[in-house]
Amino acid sequence: MGEFELIRQYFAAASCAQAGEGVALGIGDDCALLELPAGEQLAVSTDTLVAEVHFPESADPFLLAQRGLGVSVSDLAAMGATPIGFTLALTLPRAEPTWLQAFACGLDRMAQACAVRLIGGDTSRGPLSLTLTVFGRVPCGRALTRSGARVGDLLCVGGELGDGAGALPLVLGQRQAPAAIAEPLLARYWSPQPQLALGQALRGKATAALDISDGLLADCGHIAAASGVALLIEQARLPLSTALLALLGTSGACDCALSGGDDYLLAFTLPPEHLADLQAQGWPIHVIGRAEAGAGVQLLDQRGQRITPQARGYQHFGSDGD
Amino acid sequence: MGEFELIRQYFAAASCAQAGEGVALGIGDDCALLELPAGEQLAVSTDTLVAEVHFPESADPFLLAQRGLGVSVSDLAAMGATPIGFTLALTLPRAEPTWLQAFACGLDRMAQACAVRLIGGDTSRGPLSLTLTVFGRVPCGRALTRSGARVGDLLCVGGELGDGAGALPLVLGQRQAPAAIAEPLLARYWSPQPQLALGQALRGKATAALDISDGLLADCGHIAAASGVALLIEQARLPLSTALLALLGTSGACDCALSGGDDYLLAFTLPPEHLADLQAQGWPIHVIGRAEAGAGVQLLDQRGQRITPQARGYQHFGSDGD
Repeated sequence: MGEFELIRQYFAAASCAQAGEGVALGIGDDCALLELPAGEQLAVSTDTLVAEVHFPESADPFLLAQRGLGVSVSDLAAMGATPIGFTLALTLPRAEPTWLQAFACGLDRMAQACAVRLIGGDTSRGPLSLTLTVFGRVPCGRALTRSGARVGDLLCVGGELGDGAGALPLVLGQRQAPAAIAEPLLARYWSPQPQLALGQALRGKATAALDISDGLLADCGHIAAASGVALLIEQARLPLSTALLALLGTSGACDCALSGGDDYLLAFTLPPEHLADLQAQGWPIHVIGRAEAGAGVQLLDQRGQRITPQARGYQHFGSDGD
Repeated sequence: MGEFELIRQYFAAASCAQAGEGVALGIGDDCALLELPAGEQLAVSTDTLVAEVHFPESADPFLLAQRGLGVSVSDLAAMGATPIGFTLALTLPRAEPTWLQAFACGLDRMAQACAVRLIGGDTSRGPLSLTLTVFGRVPCGRALTRSGARVGDLLCVGGELGDGAGALPLVLGQRQAPAAIAEPLLARYWSPQPQLALGQALRGKATAALDISDGLLADCGHIAAASGVALLIEQARLPLSTALLALLGTSGACDCALSGGDDYLLAFTLPPEHLADLQAQGWPIHVIGRAEAGAGVQLLDQRGQRITPQARGYQHFGSDGD
């Protein structure tokens, strides 16, 4: 048995590969088998992370696995889906037990947090990269897509923006900060928490949704284009964390919030009549603008002037990694 | 818009991304949405191919895409599933239009041959590799697994064995052969045809099945272990192609058939009472042995002697690529 066969068995034994609703057959055959309740659809998303493009090759394997799975499951949250399982295609130059054990632990941590189960995958020798494919279920016709925003809807986000991008210089060791500032930002970067419950609560209420990965401006551009509306963002209403403001000041924090990526919070459009009920239920919903007739994204700056921003297309860790 | 965003749009426009049963939402949102008919399960499999591990970096992109998708869909055939869709996570060092166009054409060719649709994916910059995740549907409880073989079942394969492994020296340019020999072998290597119809015909009849990817001995070992039986292979009954025999002679051809991988034909166990009907229907079924009480794989060699072969664990293109 080759060392890579051993790796497969190692993952198969991890607790994230045990039991789980909706999984009729897990790891070990030619295919896994998933079951869907009647009246539900399967949501599927695939993401690849490549060393030295999306993360430093020296990244802590626990944090890398945790972040990788969190980022992928965030796509399920953006559709209002309930997670079922995921596959992991892991390519690595060599099998190092310490690295693998930490990676499997990080995967397990996030899998348990998201109630999602490892159902299969592949392990190859080669340059370090991981491809995660996640599966969820959503009632037929109730998935949140990008295309339903209507003029008059409120533009909302699910939390404080920009922390992931603000953390990047800390991640790369290009900058230092006191623990009270660095820790919350690094936690947002390395342990993104997919807003699964919020996504599910928005089904039948939000008219369009996605998770912010490329930066607020770029991602709002996707909703605007798919829905055929313009989106106006009011800069003064951007929710910003104390830590980000302390690190970068108001202007730098706003830049991160608008053009930084790696937030993995939901952005969505909401007919105004649903706002009060959802906020009364305690959901973290921040109104940051509205949908108007037109196209593209506009920004109402701090002085109350409308400008058409250049979405700079956040490049995450490397350049044009996509 | 970055060049990698353009690549995504290129694939999204390919005909394999158009229309298709069971796909409620395709490329372009946070997730794709699949639908399953009532009473069916979803079969899922993931495979990664890494340059210089599973294929030469200089491989023809049309052939690479065709082969990659064929190999992945073969896992659906092994479960008796009907293909629905697939995702492609493509990592490549740079965006070369000629390479990409040929790759997309090869993908399209195999997608059409298998009636499977591109539903999503990811494109990254990095060392060349592809991860394909395929989706199919199968009636609940009718999937062919590896674990149901019973003592007395016949051991069968779906065609002539060893051609893929026999082609490898030709693929690598280590050996030359006349066109009449090289062409059929290279076709088997570069254009594996998943035995989807055979897999579906075997539902409710075969007791265990898989597709031969690691070599007959190794893969029969998987069925034997999962089912708790021994499998006896009669060497004299191995179906071998004229081209393979012409290239390697009987002994070399047998070696390829037993220990070579890359066949992507079905191997399965069949209660004897089903054989005549299936053969009368024209299915290419070759009986090569039987299931016995015990464990592991035994070989009845040309002289009628039982030996316990060492499954050499075929290494495909590189070493321990898995």
